[in-house]
Amino acid sequence: MPSISNKGLRMPASPIRRLVPYAEAARSQGRTVYQLNIGQPDIQTPDLALRAIKSFSQSIIEYSHSAGITSYRQKLSAYYQHMNMPIGPDQLLITTGGSEAILFALMSCLNEGDELIIPEPFYANYISFAITAGVNIVPVTAHIEDGFALPPMDAFEAKITAKTKAILICNPSNPTGYLYTKEELMRLRDIVLKHDLFLFADEVYREFVYDGKKHMSTFELPGLENHLVVVDSISKRYSMCGARIGALLTQNEEVYQTCLKFAQARLSPPTFGQVAAEAALETPQSYFNEVVSEYESRRNHMVDLLNQIPGVQCPLPGGAFYTVARLPVKNAEDFCIWMLKEFAFHNQTVMLAPASGFYVTPDMGINEVRLAYVLNREKIEKAMECLAHGLEAYQQVLHLAE
Amino acid sequence: MPSISNKGLRMPASPIRRLVPYAEAARSQGRTVYQLNIGQPDIQTPDLALRAIKSFSQSIIEYSHSAGITSYRQKLSAYYQHMNMPIGPDQLLITTGGSEAILFALMSCLNEGDELIIPEPFYANYISFAITAGVNIVPVTAHIEDGFALPPMDAFEAKITAKTKAILICNPSNPTGYLYTKEELMRLRDIVLKHDLFLFADEVYREFVYDGKKHMSTFELPGLENHLVVVDSISKRYSMCGARIGALLTQNEEVYQTCLKFAQARLSPPTFGQVAAEAALETPQSYFNEVVSEYESRRNHMVDLLNQIPGVQCPLPGGAFYTVARLPVKNAEDFCIWMLKEFAFHNQTVMLAPASGFYVTPDMGINEVRLAYVLNREKIEKAMECLAHGLEAYQQVLHLAE
Repeated sequence: MPSISNKGLRMPASPIRRLVPYAEAARSQGRTVYQLNIGQPDIQTPDLALRAIKSFSQSIIEYSHSAGITSYRQKLSAYYQHMNMPIGPDQLLITTGGSEAILFALMSCLNEGDELIIPEPFYANYISFAITAGVNIVPVTAHIEDGFALPPMDAFEAKITAKTKAILICNPSNPTGYLYTKEELMRLRDIVLKHDLFLFADEVYREFVYDGKKHMSTFELPGLENHLVVVDSISKRYSMCGARIGALLTQNEEVYQTCLKFAQARLSPPTFGQVAAEAALETPQSYFNEVVSEYESRRNHMVDLLNQIPGVQCPLPGGAFYTVARLPVKNAEDFCIWMLKEFAFHNQTVMLAPASGFYVTPDMGINEVRLAYVLNREKIEKAMECLAHGLEAYQQVLHLAE
Repeated sequence: MPSISNKGLRMPASPIRRLVPYAEAARSQGRTVYQLNIGQPDIQTPDLALRAIKSFSQSIIEYSHSAGITSYRQKLSAYYQHMNMPIGPDQLLITTGGSEAILFALMSCLNEGDELIIPEPFYANYISFAITAGVNIVPVTAHIEDGFALPPMDAFEAKITAKTKAILICNPSNPTGYLYTKEELMRLRDIVLKHDLFLFADEVYREFVYDGKKHMSTFELPGLENHLVVVDSISKRYSMCGARIGALLTQNEEVYQTCLKFAQARLSPPTFGQVAAEAALETPQSYFNEVVSEYESRRNHMVDLLNQIPGVQCPLPGGAFYTVARLPVKNAEDFCIWMLKEFAFHNQTVMLAPASGFYVTPDMGINEVRLAYVLNREKIEKAMECLAHGLEAYQQVLHLAE
């Protein structure tokens, strides 16, 4: 029997999805599972996107242009211009989700064995994309005590070698929800220019920013024309995760043309998703105002309830719809599995994502979890009550076992 | 300015799509361009697939399971069983087009630097996928004089080294339309087992087989349980290229689980496409009978007209909707560009795909083109008339230039 590849062996199972069998078992026993482990919003997709699909009028579902449907690219370019991102229709490439945009960027810009610096904790699937591209991730650790702020410049400089080719950030961050300040972004810009690196910025949570603040795109940083690749996606913006539509944006013509060759190889992004996405661009600002206010209220409520649980520590995130909390347990993954396998409070339990999968430094985040506030306030309240009782029960169980 | 990756530099522009700017220019001058270069069928998508999309009733477009929607996998499994392919719902992975299935297979089974043997000419994008995966393609040349039959066993054995990890075939073949016989497939099986290799079989044109013959799947070959990965797609079957829905099938549990990790990293295949694909499975046999009879009649007509043009040689393909023809020119790419840039017959011209992009052996196929018979008989007739006049005019132009 022929053997599996080394990359295949090294690919991690998703830390977000690997507890799914335990949750399925809990549900099949009749328990309610509050699912805070995954960023699948419960927010409705804008009606005009759904209507565009329902009135799809072509009789052949054809390939689109490899870079995406022209009219969609034109309108999407206008959306970016409105966001202070000076990107023309020929400087953006429609991709199959943000995932594909990251892969295209890595494949086009980094060689096998090159190093990619990422502040950790970071979106766990970056590890999978790096393995796919044969790239080595070099982490710079952000700390819960600092609310996961950008580590200082010298922490980056200490990690830069002859192999360093790029820095990847996610702003606002999945999993921490941290929103970078202008000053932090300017620091990143200086490092990138000083060492002639690429900067990859995952800005898919751009719209989800709280406390009246405004998201600053890396495109607003001066002098990065040849260095910057921005990754985008409509999955969260319009609650259309299943449409699998993202985008790659760059002003670097050589990077664009190279990414386009990878795009041509897979022929085209999904046609239906593009049709829905094009229509979704007409979504009124009132939709986002409502959604942002809903998430902000959920965030306040969840973080407040979390910090009321003895021994739990959770910073207040500035954006996205995630937060990373420290729990009073030794090993958060063991606790998460126990919650699904063994625990019930009024026949309910909670599913969380162990945070260790969002770090690459060994033993980091071992007592942390990521929570997505993608359930309404009432459910969040019940979930936090469950979690509080679960933590208490778990400590007693551990005590008895000793 | 940071540099592009080596893989990015090596990625070829699509030989199928790289003449597009010339065709656009011709059209903008008001010329009719008969497009035989690309496998975009003019056949209608089955109505029930379109209706499923128009009655999409969910209010949130959610991620699906990373392996694909469960109900779709169950029904798709039944379709395969019906085709003598014993594949259960947990032995198939829904992918974003057949393209992604090939990438998953290469990434999961081959290391950087491993060798993949492919009979050439082959689907040009295999080169792009091999570069992406860091795999070296080793060609075994099939010849137009033999109708592009499978090269003899010793031609394969001569290419096998310690680095050889897999053989990839496409049956029926894009670009040649060749349909492998049972005897040829058994020969491949013997090589695969003797050298403990993977066999990747791209069977996306399974339904398009002519002259009353039947397609034989590699799953019908005994003893390949641990060796075989089949790539599939609905793009051509239901004329749904833009849906971007394919599948990867394997009975090798380790390969399946490894591919699933790559699938989890990109979260899920497109939801809309899966909904349309699930509905399309109910397409009655009469649809295929009509489509196959239409293609067969086009094939007969086109190959007949091609062979009537002085100096043109074209075998009769047994399947798919492509054929590779030899033209009486030195360089087919120069001729194809000339046809778009310089030539008109009654204000019409023809767009073909130069075949050299489907070979990796230097100078092979330099006077060959691939033609897709994706236009109706009337248009094919006009296109062949155009081509005949074009070839005649081209020879005069070259003669004058000498």
